[in-house]
Amino acid sequence: MKLYTYWRSSAAMRVRMALTLKALSCEMVPVHLARNGGEHRGAAHLARHPQGLVPVLDLDGGGLVIQSLAIIEYLEETYPDPPLLPADALGRARVRALAQAIACEIHPLQNLRVRQYLTGPLAMDDEALGRWNRHWVEDGLRSVERLLADAPETGRFCHGDTPTVADCCLVPQLYNARRFGCDLSGLDTILRIDAACQALPAVQAAAPERQSDAE
Amino acid sequence: MKLYTYWRSSAAMRVRMALTLKALSCEMVPVHLARNGGEHRGAAHLARHPQGLVPVLDLDGGGLVIQSLAIIEYLEETYPDPPLLPADALGRARVRALAQAIACEIHPLQNLRVRQYLTGPLAMDDEALGRWNRHWVEDGLRSVERLLADAPETGRFCHGDTPTVADCCLVPQLYNARRFGCDLSGLDTILRIDAACQALPAVQAAAPERQSDAE
Repeated sequence: MKLYTYWRSSAAMRVRMALTLKALSCEMVPVHLARNGGEHRGAAHLARHPQGLVPVLDLDGGGLVIQSLAIIEYLEETYPDPPLLPADALGRARVRALAQAIACEIHPLQNLRVRQYLTGPLAMDDEALGRWNRHWVEDGLRSVERLLADAPETGRFCHGDTPTVADCCLVPQLYNARRFGCDLSGLDTILRIDAACQALPAVQAAAPERQSDAE
Repeated sequence: MKLYTYWRSSAAMRVRMALTLKALSCEMVPVHLARNGGEHRGAAHLARHPQGLVPVLDLDGGGLVIQSLAIIEYLEETYPDPPLLPADALGRARVRALAQAIACEIHPLQNLRVRQYLTGPLAMDDEALGRWNRHWVEDGLRSVERLLADAPETGRFCHGDTPTVADCCLVPQLYNARRFGCDLSGLDTILRIDAACQALPAVQAAAPERQSDAE
């Protein structure tokens, strides 16, 4: 397998975490989002992914899988051990909901193409862009904190005592939150879970600064 | 089962479509997003969903499921017939990717709380807000069109000849696109699939104007 990835893309980092947590061997192929006007917009990458996004999983037997959470579900079905989803339907629903609370509610509002539209056509300055980024990340993470803090299902990780898809989304979002200088006060459960994740060698191996294309 | 819903919420409509396509009986409980300062922000609804969003599925045996795609995956696991995901892992990955191309890339950028932030703190006027909405919907739907148009897996519906989770996301997004006055030219595959969906009584029953809280 090959993963088309970018070191700082949090969607790509979700998939890298799933791969390392499952101890799967996968070649990492960097696609530079900022260099050459954006390699993701070049013909070679658009042939793999018509939306010009990373990550893309290129399967050994042919076949491309796009969208980080679809890729992780595919990996889960194909390489079920160790599982990244709980055994019960209600637990799986909770983990998927936590993952989507990040992937659908937080991340889309501050990814690269949105930032480029805000600073380009909308002529937003750096300070206003910073406020925009921090607003959605802080607001979204406070919601996720509420989902985690009061739930008996929350354990050492987002759901129980082993990492799940929810943790694969939370850790990259925290990385982004720190990068944007967000206020993380009050996010006690999230910070405790992030620290538990960061202690795992598999999570460390998926970190942005450990990738070959890190700058 | 009860579904906390709002007639015009496209996330709620996705779940309504999954319920009607599976012919499941479910009580619809409207949560009005505009009335009384937003019923979704009231204590009663926040107790169900700390993010104050719809939809929420309230299970007969107790238990709440949030996030539209997590709810649909739960319904698929619990009531597998008729299926809304293909039988093969690669097909399921494609359908989930199409669903997420809408739920993660298009819808988050023009939902209610984002529109309220743009017109409130950012003081965007109606014309600029209209451009913002149309930009993301048109750009996103063109990407989805590319994913659908060239793929041999595309059939009468997004994947083959029976509706899937991808169609449950596409139809509500088209409803939004029309509401925002988007340019739908060139979206031939999408419009053909939307028409095939609209011909199904189950899809008609899930439509916004057919809900008891429609205005």
